[in-house]
Amino acid sequence: MKITRMHGAGGKLMQELIEKVILGNLELTSVEGGVGLRELDDGGTVPLGDREIIFTIDGHTVKPIFFPGGDIGKLAVCGAVNDIAVMGGEPVALSLSLIIPEGFPIDKLDRIMKSINETSKEAGVPIITGDTKVSNVDDIVITTAGIGITERGKVIRDSGMKERDVIIVSGNIGEHGMTILLARENFDFKSNLKSDVAPLNKLIKKVLDSGVEVHAMKDPTRGGLASALNEMVEKSGLGINIYEEKIPISEEVQSLSEALGIDPLTVANEGKVVMAVKKEDGEKALEVLRSHPLGRNAQIIGEVVSDHKMVVMETLVGRRIIDTPMGDPIPRVC
Amino acid sequence: MKITRMHGAGGKLMQELIEKVILGNLELTSVEGGVGLRELDDGGTVPLGDREIIFTIDGHTVKPIFFPGGDIGKLAVCGAVNDIAVMGGEPVALSLSLIIPEGFPIDKLDRIMKSINETSKEAGVPIITGDTKVSNVDDIVITTAGIGITERGKVIRDSGMKERDVIIVSGNIGEHGMTILLARENFDFKSNLKSDVAPLNKLIKKVLDSGVEVHAMKDPTRGGLASALNEMVEKSGLGINIYEEKIPISEEVQSLSEALGIDPLTVANEGKVVMAVKKEDGEKALEVLRSHPLGRNAQIIGEVVSDHKMVVMETLVGRRIIDTPMGDPIPRVC
Repeated sequence: MKITRMHGAGGKLMQELIEKVILGNLELTSVEGGVGLRELDDGGTVPLGDREIIFTIDGHTVKPIFFPGGDIGKLAVCGAVNDIAVMGGEPVALSLSLIIPEGFPIDKLDRIMKSINETSKEAGVPIITGDTKVSNVDDIVITTAGIGITERGKVIRDSGMKERDVIIVSGNIGEHGMTILLARENFDFKSNLKSDVAPLNKLIKKVLDSGVEVHAMKDPTRGGLASALNEMVEKSGLGINIYEEKIPISEEVQSLSEALGIDPLTVANEGKVVMAVKKEDGEKALEVLRSHPLGRNAQIIGEVVSDHKMVVMETLVGRRIIDTPMGDPIPRVC
Repeated sequence: MKITRMHGAGGKLMQELIEKVILGNLELTSVEGGVGLRELDDGGTVPLGDREIIFTIDGHTVKPIFFPGGDIGKLAVCGAVNDIAVMGGEPVALSLSLIIPEGFPIDKLDRIMKSINETSKEAGVPIITGDTKVSNVDDIVITTAGIGITERGKVIRDSGMKERDVIIVSGNIGEHGMTILLARENFDFKSNLKSDVAPLNKLIKKVLDSGVEVHAMKDPTRGGLASALNEMVEKSGLGINIYEEKIPISEEVQSLSEALGIDPLTVANEGKVVMAVKKEDGEKALEVLRSHPLGRNAQIIGEVVSDHKMVVMETLVGRRIIDTPMGDPIPRVC
């Protein structure tokens, strides 16, 4: 058996690979009292006194490395920052591992580093350590790890949603993946579409500081909203009903999806958060999100139910089960 | 200007690249009161209450991925564990990022994961989070990040050596790099040589727990002992005298070095530590090191001086300046 592209695409095949070959072989996967690898959350945690350290890592191999709205450097910083933020942590430090192909132009590396700098400043998170290797990769690979801090026991888990919670998405879906697809294929039509890649820590902090009760969070990257919601369902043992008409999506992504036959629910986002929020706090959460530029299109898209354990979407023509995609329809998006 | 292999080899070219393109572009590079990126130590630190979190990252692209004495998985775990240990920290958690080429056999991945598991158990450090991507790399890339903990202000810096300190190496040098070279080139002679790759945290803890005063530590990986000693010299503003006859080296590595015209001082190690130890504690440190299997060939190889700012080696035929190598003579060793 060999690894295929679909094994890396954030869907079912990848889940199976991780379960069998990765988790199946590792015996030490958590620190006492902390979130471990087996939980397959956006990061792991290390309890330390009255705090909890949140620890994440992400490898980035997007193609092309420069795209409308961002580049691999911005993506790498946001990947680590957002994984910490959706666990309820304040990101405090990043580390950066570069694997650069021989022959890579130094001016491109310079441009990527400038973008990393801008994003690190936007998020307010320093890069305190790093590693550089030159190797036979077809393009630059950037892996970022991050450390965040929260009060002990205050980690927000992707498993934590409760019955009656409302499901909120912070803005228009599918923009990152679709942008990458367009940039890659050189479709011959003009588009203003750009990636949504952005650090979400300040947006999320605003919501948490407002006192809104957030029970679960995820950033719907690979596999899109469909993967994120299904993970929340599987881990909580509850179900989610969503309403197609409520899902924020730009006209452009909508029409592109139709033209290309790609379900926008399965397309990667890099600057969006999905939250399960206590029903009574839903409107307040929406208001706080919308007061921030990165959350201005936030919407309540559905609610948590206990009468089934699926993601069910109500559409104009009836109900449809939203399954975990087998893999991302667009590979190498992040 | 383009990136060449030598830019990634741990020598002068790499130092220049990092100074100009990486450090030159980044503005946020440290947490208040912690060790930052600009210090170019084996990791950065985040002070937290009365503790200090040590944070490291390393990308691994060794070729071949399986070699006598280890594989890329063992290397990846040891890389992170050792970087934390040489800063005086206790490693508490690792994260693992896999970039796997399409078509990579799943049984090879399984073998690598088993090796990661064994090494994680040997070091006693869990892998609490991870990420898997499938991409166009020529072979698997494994990046590991690590978190370690120490008391605040107790971080051991590679800049910390003091005049009169003795310089100790924990065992035979050059074995990792030479093993990789032999494994790669298919030289047609039999060899029992194997990589020294090993987690050093328990060995180092033993030394620190014994009360020995360690002023500086490094693991002499890329660029070998020559790079490590020169870094300690540059960062401390002091000099080091070493004695060729004291440097622990196996007959096999010695004769291979001569046959191939490679200076063993510049060859990578993956299971060795160099320490600058208070002169009065030197013999005790040696004794503690030698009582552990990974330190049984430990030697005092020289001392710290203030009358020059170089690494000077006394040989049978006179004194020789050991410079930072331009790059590693054997690329892609780790």
